Amino acid sequence: MEKFSVVLIDQGERTTVEVPVSEEVPLTLEVNGKELATLLATPEHLKNLVTGFLFTSGFIREAAQIKSISIDPERWKADIIAKGEDFADDLVFKRIYTSGCGKGVIFHNPLDLFNRVRIVSDFRVQKEVVRELVKVFQRYSEEHALTHGVHSAALASRDEILIFRDDIGRHNAMDKVIGEALYSNMSFTDKILLTSGRISSEILSKVLRCRMPVMAAIGAPTNQAVKLARQAELTIAGLVRGSKIFVYSGEERLF
Amino acid sequence: MEKFSVVLIDQGERTTVEVPVSEEVPLTLEVNGKELATLLATPEHLKNLVTGFLFTSGFIREAAQIKSISIDPERWKADIIAKGEDFADDLVFKRIYTSGCGKGVIFHNPLDLFNRVRIVSDFRVQKEVVRELVKVFQRYSEEHALTHGVHSAALASRDEILIFRDDIGRHNAMDKVIGEALYSNMSFTDKILLTSGRISSEILSKVLRCRMPVMAAIGAPTNQAVKLARQAELTIAGLVRGSKIFVYSGEERLF
Repeated sequence: MEKFSVVLIDQGERTTVEVPVSEEVPLTLEVNGKELATLLATPEHLKNLVTGFLFTSGFIREAAQIKSISIDPERWKADIIAKGEDFADDLVFKRIYTSGCGKGVIFHNPLDLFNRVRIVSDFRVQKEVVRELVKVFQRYSEEHALTHGVHSAALASRDEILIFRDDIGRHNAMDKVIGEALYSNMSFTDKILLTSGRISSEILSKVLRCRMPVMAAIGAPTNQAVKLARQAELTIAGLVRGSKIFVYSGEERLF
Repeated sequence: MEKFSVVLIDQGERTTVEVPVSEEVPLTLEVNGKELATLLATPEHLKNLVTGFLFTSGFIREAAQIKSISIDPERWKADIIAKGEDFADDLVFKRIYTSGCGKGVIFHNPLDLFNRVRIVSDFRVQKEVVRELVKVFQRYSEEHALTHGVHSAALASRDEILIFRDDIGRHNAMDKVIGEALYSNMSFTDKILLTSGRISSEILSKVLRCRMPVMAAIGAPTNQAVKLARQAELTIAGLVRGSKIFVYSGEERLF
């Protein structure tokens, strides 16, 4: 966070106050010496971000494919040494992405991608547990409390939040959580993904990529996200606010 | 909007309810027969979106450079006939973008782009007017009230909201407003841009591209947005909520 001196107008009164503001950096990913993408992100947990991004974008299947990541905090460059068939294809590198919302690039049409994915899992969770996890999740972010400028994502078991990450982009926050989970070899198939934002097909595709059985969001899904989730038999609990949970898909996993 | 039958859990009770959900379509832009980008967007006002996107991404300088746009609602393809130096460059078309948050692609590093832009304008507006416009703005979206799944943007004079657009992505909502303004030859230099979301450098760059003097947001800016706005002498009123307005930049335009 960076502090700025700003003018606060409150009921006609002008005062000068110091306020913390979330930081944004343009992180350029170079894989094996070639530029792949530029992500606008909060400067914390950038190695998590790189790993999660390469995984959810389909470039790697596991963290072990990344030999090294070094971040240059002067030029905001991530030098990545990785093996992967895609990285041998020069065409990939002709697509330089700078993305929205502090991120969210994917390299395919998400509506085509996941037609054949089906979440086969007997994981179930009590509805009260989901509500309680979301309550804790909403109060978890110190940065959000201070700046109101970040989205959050988390990976939770039925008992507690295991990994929590903030970012100026909700896609980034999710990639950071997934990147950390990959590094620590955490299984996804008995976990719940929490997000502070809305669920588009791109957000849903990240969860599908991990084969997570349940996601819970404070925001609402789009129609494509609902359709994809129903096809894949993934549980979406959306608009989890107050005493309400809307279950758009896979209600049998909530009891 | 599309209606889905979903399970509502409220205080232990399960009921089945019909809920409206915002629609998401993958719109592929083909300029002069060549594929440029795929945007995930709400299917309304797609010609506005195309025009605004081409303008804020720096491909066109005015709406007149677009000869025609035809939208195929079966394949979600926008066929655009346009003139512009950039479109003669084949390299541009090698970069196929699919973007985040239902959109937000830009073709440059926004932190480099606007170093030389300065908003020279004696436009001023009363703080009470900004607060009142934001109040009206927040209640304006029928779709948001129904689905909670869209962001909004608007262009306002000191008197009223002139153009209002919704989208599943906040970048798209802004591009739709700007596209409509370009078509109707509306001047930007005496207008206020309203947004329901946060202000990243990418969002700020769209406002700078139009030379709008004032933007007001319900969300917070990032540090880069504040720095760019101060350099460019653009007014940012952020976190406009309840009785409070935080003026991060250009306070002399609010009186």
